[in-house]
Amino acid sequence: MLDKRLQADCLYLHKMELCELLLMNDSRWPWLILVPRITDACEIHQLDKLNQKLLSRETNQISSILADICNCEKINTGALGNIVRQLHVHIVARNSGDTNWPGPVWGFGERQPYHQENLESLMHNIGKRLA
Amino acid sequence: MLDKRLQADCLYLHKMELCELLLMNDSRWPWLILVPRITDACEIHQLDKLNQKLLSRETNQISSILADICNCEKINTGALGNIVRQLHVHIVARNSGDTNWPGPVWGFGERQPYHQENLESLMHNIGKRLA
Repeated sequence: MLDKRLQADCLYLHKMELCELLLMNDSRWPWLILVPRITDACEIHQLDKLNQKLLSRETNQISSILADICNCEKINTGALGNIVRQLHVHIVARNSGDTNWPGPVWGFGERQPYHQENLESLMHNIGKRLA
Repeated sequence: MLDKRLQADCLYLHKMELCELLLMNDSRWPWLILVPRITDACEIHQLDKLNQKLLSRETNQISSILADICNCEKINTGALGNIVRQLHVHIVARNSGDTNWPGPVWGFGERQPYHQENLESLMHNIGKRLA
């Protein structure tokens, strides 16, 4: 059961071995979120060893895909959960001069939803790489 | 060779299998940093598979220790590198009402170095868990 805030802010992309892959509907940065299908941990270190490995592998796989698609300067990954306690991992493509660069994306300003055409293009490109 | 900014802001704690473990000398939050001893990657997904696994394992080990020692409400982990490009992973203990809660620690305000006695106590407690 996905947290209501993640449901409201994100679009569903793909089912992976451990995680659901979401796209943050915020056009300021290409921003993906992995949400493990587990209910008994709100910290990565609380996962069992197998799920720790799977989460690491899926995080690295998605980071690599996002970096390739966006040809970005830097990937930012983070697991914070100060507001949404359901365990989730952020993977964000960053470039010099983007919103709040070189600061973090979390908690900055207001979300700016994608225009439909840009959204479809990004989702298509990610979907192709995951197929 | 450790980045000059990490050298200036951090204290050396421990040598792990893959990483050097540093303590950010900022008393606002208990904040550890893992720096892999590699020179050919500035993204986690660029590490070879073995080092990806080691970094995940060491990140989770240090997260667990920091959570235990600090009895904190939440661990925040992140790999940003927008300013310091040498690959490094942040592991931070967070609590409701701490500086900038529930926002992120990165880029917020000015670092506040520890008083010597608090520093020694924290370093002692971490060192005991790693021994």
